[in-house]
Amino acid sequence: MSEITRVALDAMGGDNAPREMVKGAVEAVRKRKDIKVLLTGKEDVIRKELSAYTYPEEQIEIVNATEVIETAEPPVKAIRGKKDSSIVVAMKMVKKGEADAFVSAGSSGAVLVGGQVLVGRIKGVERPPLAPLIPTLKGVSLLIDCGANVDARPSHLVQFAKMGSIYMESVMGKKNPTVGIVNIGAEEEKGNALVKETFPLLKECPDINFIGSVEARDIPYGAADVIVCEAFAGNIILKLYEGVAGALLKKVKKGMLSSLRSKIGALLVKPALKGVLKDFDTSEYGGAPLLGLNGLVVKTHGSSKSKEVCNSIIQCVAFKEQKINEKIKEAIQQETLEEKKEVE
Amino acid sequence: MSEITRVALDAMGGDNAPREMVKGAVEAVRKRKDIKVLLTGKEDVIRKELSAYTYPEEQIEIVNATEVIETAEPPVKAIRGKKDSSIVVAMKMVKKGEADAFVSAGSSGAVLVGGQVLVGRIKGVERPPLAPLIPTLKGVSLLIDCGANVDARPSHLVQFAKMGSIYMESVMGKKNPTVGIVNIGAEEEKGNALVKETFPLLKECPDINFIGSVEARDIPYGAADVIVCEAFAGNIILKLYEGVAGALLKKVKKGMLSSLRSKIGALLVKPALKGVLKDFDTSEYGGAPLLGLNGLVVKTHGSSKSKEVCNSIIQCVAFKEQKINEKIKEAIQQETLEEKKEVE
Repeated sequence: MSEITRVALDAMGGDNAPREMVKGAVEAVRKRKDIKVLLTGKEDVIRKELSAYTYPEEQIEIVNATEVIETAEPPVKAIRGKKDSSIVVAMKMVKKGEADAFVSAGSSGAVLVGGQVLVGRIKGVERPPLAPLIPTLKGVSLLIDCGANVDARPSHLVQFAKMGSIYMESVMGKKNPTVGIVNIGAEEEKGNALVKETFPLLKECPDINFIGSVEARDIPYGAADVIVCEAFAGNIILKLYEGVAGALLKKVKKGMLSSLRSKIGALLVKPALKGVLKDFDTSEYGGAPLLGLNGLVVKTHGSSKSKEVCNSIIQCVAFKEQKINEKIKEAIQQETLEEKKEVE
Repeated sequence: MSEITRVALDAMGGDNAPREMVKGAVEAVRKRKDIKVLLTGKEDVIRKELSAYTYPEEQIEIVNATEVIETAEPPVKAIRGKKDSSIVVAMKMVKKGEADAFVSAGSSGAVLVGGQVLVGRIKGVERPPLAPLIPTLKGVSLLIDCGANVDARPSHLVQFAKMGSIYMESVMGKKNPTVGIVNIGAEEEKGNALVKETFPLLKECPDINFIGSVEARDIPYGAADVIVCEAFAGNIILKLYEGVAGALLKKVKKGMLSSLRSKIGALLVKPALKGVLKDFDTSEYGGAPLLGLNGLVVKTHGSSKSKEVCNSIIQCVAFKEQKINEKIKEAIQQETLEEKKEVE
């Protein structure tokens, strides 16, 4: 039997906590024998939720945490002040090696700050990026960075490209993944100051498959496996993806219900469309990993339901089995060695 | 009878030139008596295209220009070198007041550079923004700036907000249009350095209806009438809008054709869906004006067909009738006066 992956799950975070979090944990352990879920949060509340299910009991453990960090709280203050919150307790377990990974649908800010402050960065990693998978016509792409740290430097983007390539290759099984940088034109001389400075660095980078600039228009068509950008741009891309798809489908639905004829048609196309929309549904792909930390931290949507929670938990197994962090350490160490050589 | 609006049209620019350009001109003068189109480009080619139509001949004039600027040419060099190109000849007519406006589906770079260099900026305007209308569930929003000048300063964004408000109010008839700044969260303390610096300036601005930050997710739902952002972000938003919508519809179509049942359904929903998609089709709204110049310059999609060309030409009438440039001059002058007062 393979090794057990221990995943701490924030039972109190997200719009649908604790119900959907606990349900997601149960679904995960029902599916996989090699997972143990450590539910952090208010013990009595979690126990009550758990009592509704039958599941392999040795695979779920409750770790009591009496406080909850709310989404509106300033992240730094919350992480410092609420030592007994579900987020802080879980992150400390990852730090101590009592858990391999942490999954939360709670406050993005608190998860990002906690990841850096409590779990800590891998030596040499300048900035840990948040890297969600986004659906494309070819499958999925990794959008890196969508985190809270904006105004990145070129060296950050180069590390994002390396870490993203490792993730796509090892976790998603994409051999020699292509890397593109988000730009406003295909030519090398185009772009803002950051992109212009980063472009030649990525071009010279030996351990990635850099294919040049990617225009936003081509991202949904699967222009590159790893889409590198600064967090402000990444956030716009991620949220507009959801926004345009959501708005357009709303319009399509309204159109279909506009006449009797189209209503009948809608009934007939519904099953076929369901599959299509499932492919373009970001929750199918689990949460976004925060890469470059001493342990895995995964942020799922605030609106996550059990399916996404379950997918996010299962995602942690591949991350551990594929030794992603060891690979990131190697890549970053390699970088430092090269820099030293250049200086000498 | 109202005054005539004279629109110079680049007959040689765009993927479908000269055919669709000439056709668009014919459609425009057939629809409106108060428009005169000055077709710039190779006289013999244009004359041949025109001969296929009957139309009020006094409303279309050919202005011979023997050169063509190609999309791939470096814009500054092209504008300087090709003095007898359809773009340069037309822009000079605007500068001299022989035309009120110029519409082109040709090289974006050349149109943006030519606008600044040949037509020239209104005194006090620091940077002329390119401002397309984008479809939303509530109608349309003006996305300002999507131009070629990235790395903007806060004072640029404040002018974009003012010029955008004037356009939405006077040309689109939106009373007291709301203005939002693209940001990665709703709170004032969020954002990159540019947004954080710009936010308080917009808040203090007396002549706009500033409603704060707008997240990209909410743009397609019509979060604000004027969406202010730096050109790099604006370009991402505009192109991702097209990309996500295009990719999703491709998937929907594929889904509908996946079984006999869904194929029959597709036939039934088709007429209803057509209306929906027309609403979400950017070409319905004409081209993007380049604001803040001594005359109107409108850039339409490179792939424009006659419908978009015609809409872009008609758009110029409202721009002239509503005296947009006079209003922009006043707003910018007001700004300079306020600054002077502060210094004194």
